[in-house]
Amino acid sequence: MSKQVTAYSAPSAGAPLVPTTIELAPLAADEVEVKISHCGVCASDLHLARGHWGPWSVYPQTCGHEIIGTVVEAGPAVKGVPLGQRVGVGWWREACEACEVCAADCQGACAKSVPTCAGGNKGGFASAIRVKAMYAFPIPDAIKSEDAAPLMCGGITVYAPLAKFTTPSKSVGVVGLGGLGHLAVKFAVARGNAVTVFSGGTKKKELAMGLGATRYVDVSDKEALAAAANTCDFVLVTGAADDVDHSKLVDVCRRLGTICYVAAQAAPISVSPLGQLFKHISVTGYTSGGRNVMREMLAFAAHHKIVPTTQLFPLADVNKALEAIENNTVRFRAVLTM
Amino acid sequence: MSKQVTAYSAPSAGAPLVPTTIELAPLAADEVEVKISHCGVCASDLHLARGHWGPWSVYPQTCGHEIIGTVVEAGPAVKGVPLGQRVGVGWWREACEACEVCAADCQGACAKSVPTCAGGNKGGFASAIRVKAMYAFPIPDAIKSEDAAPLMCGGITVYAPLAKFTTPSKSVGVVGLGGLGHLAVKFAVARGNAVTVFSGGTKKKELAMGLGATRYVDVSDKEALAAAANTCDFVLVTGAADDVDHSKLVDVCRRLGTICYVAAQAAPISVSPLGQLFKHISVTGYTSGGRNVMREMLAFAAHHKIVPTTQLFPLADVNKALEAIENNTVRFRAVLTM
Repeated sequence: MSKQVTAYSAPSAGAPLVPTTIELAPLAADEVEVKISHCGVCASDLHLARGHWGPWSVYPQTCGHEIIGTVVEAGPAVKGVPLGQRVGVGWWREACEACEVCAADCQGACAKSVPTCAGGNKGGFASAIRVKAMYAFPIPDAIKSEDAAPLMCGGITVYAPLAKFTTPSKSVGVVGLGGLGHLAVKFAVARGNAVTVFSGGTKKKELAMGLGATRYVDVSDKEALAAAANTCDFVLVTGAADDVDHSKLVDVCRRLGTICYVAAQAAPISVSPLGQLFKHISVTGYTSGGRNVMREMLAFAAHHKIVPTTQLFPLADVNKALEAIENNTVRFRAVLTM
Repeated sequence: MSKQVTAYSAPSAGAPLVPTTIELAPLAADEVEVKISHCGVCASDLHLARGHWGPWSVYPQTCGHEIIGTVVEAGPAVKGVPLGQRVGVGWWREACEACEVCAADCQGACAKSVPTCAGGNKGGFASAIRVKAMYAFPIPDAIKSEDAAPLMCGGITVYAPLAKFTTPSKSVGVVGLGGLGHLAVKFAVARGNAVTVFSGGTKKKELAMGLGATRYVDVSDKEALAAAANTCDFVLVTGAADDVDHSKLVDVCRRLGTICYVAAQAAPISVSPLGQLFKHISVTGYTSGGRNVMREMLAFAAHHKIVPTTQLFPLADVNKALEAIENNTVRFRAVLTM
């Protein structure tokens, strides 16, 4: 049967979130109900709450897709996720599981993938959620719940393309040093890569080097950016100041290299076939990761003690968390406690 | 010692080619002298003769980089290319052979690669050429010299990316049905791929289907192009009408697909990270192929009897051949006979 639970939701685009009651649909045979203890707050949640992504928001909009909690109910077809299991839920709650994209463990690119908290689905700024069991991933004991939450979206978003496109010998560039970027640096360093951080200004240089980066490039310094041309095998764009010339970021790639966009950047980028692609450079993108790589990421994070830098907010302060993201003052991931 | 041979060269940008005498540098220990019997005429030769590529032309400019001939002299360090051996020479005459790009058999992307007939080097519109033996590739007996010539640039340019990015089960799109495109269709069909040809208008449809394509899309028909969205695993852009929206060509890629530019297109293309790359689509380019894949291409062409459609011109008619390329009337590759 359906069930009513408490949540914080945006009543309309841009309005502050307010306490609401939301209805969970009857538990399907392949679903679990997760009692939520923590939920990360991602920039995507801000975009959904504020209505930046048009029809993806359905009001009242209940955001939240970096969910950690405990399985309290399971449908009869559920296997491998027992009652009492601590699990995490990320950006996707469902995919077709039948197409070649899903078979390639790229469920995020499946044409039928269903986001956890967009398009009318209710997310994790709530006391509970019901989701397909195969999208409720067991959290290794070594990771605290408040640290695990941001891994479910921020973590997998940077880990999956690193795992796909790099080997330990590759030189990795990370563009942007925010919620995604700082995790990308930690993962890449742990994977054995030499890491260059590209960010605007110099105020994040010390932080970058402290995270294990081997080089810092101020992208607002045109000469420094030009000097970094042709130095990275793989460039992960996690964010970039609007005034960065993305064509110059492509130039950072070495021959045979790849530049991969994981930031949800709407503006198109310009690429020169003759000047850039003829160096056998690939420009690509990635949306989160599949179910297999999610488990791999969690195990790797546990083994290497990779945790995000977080700021905790009680759920009642969710608007403060969203404002902090809006003002770019969170260092680096906000996490709600229920 | 150096040696004088006869050639046809452009005395200045845009001027008709005239008979000239060119000097071959003394034969190095690792070089062979090739007595030329045939030389293909590629659009790149036209660009070099006309001065379209700026400093790449050095006048008098001797073009020609689809060279077939016989080894008549070999330096003392040459192995595997005996006197009397029929060989072919393509766009590249040298690379560093020491960097990781060369080790990956992507010599065309090596920063130190040297083009056969640009930057002051004298090409194959001549009676002979001296080149590094490792860039003089044995031609299988089954391939006639006039057919082998266009394979040395046109053939390898399309074969190498097909070999790198596709398996037989992949759906391949070929954009443009000229010198490169018609070879791409033949190679892809022989490799087992379902092939869609994208070209402007409908006049090449019958030809495309006759080459073994399974579908033809008129790119000037916006509805037809839109209907082809999300249908090809790999799209090879061998040329495109200037008024084609390359952003729409990217849309032809299926999720996880790749679009690869081999046409020497100077205008940048626009790609949307959020709308296109988030389907895990890659945009890349390729310049000719490495030494290993060149041998593979020649063996594959011999086995499958893949030959270009050619028009033969005696060397003295080289200007007619260039004009035919300029006027887009060659079907499909012009070949000079010496």
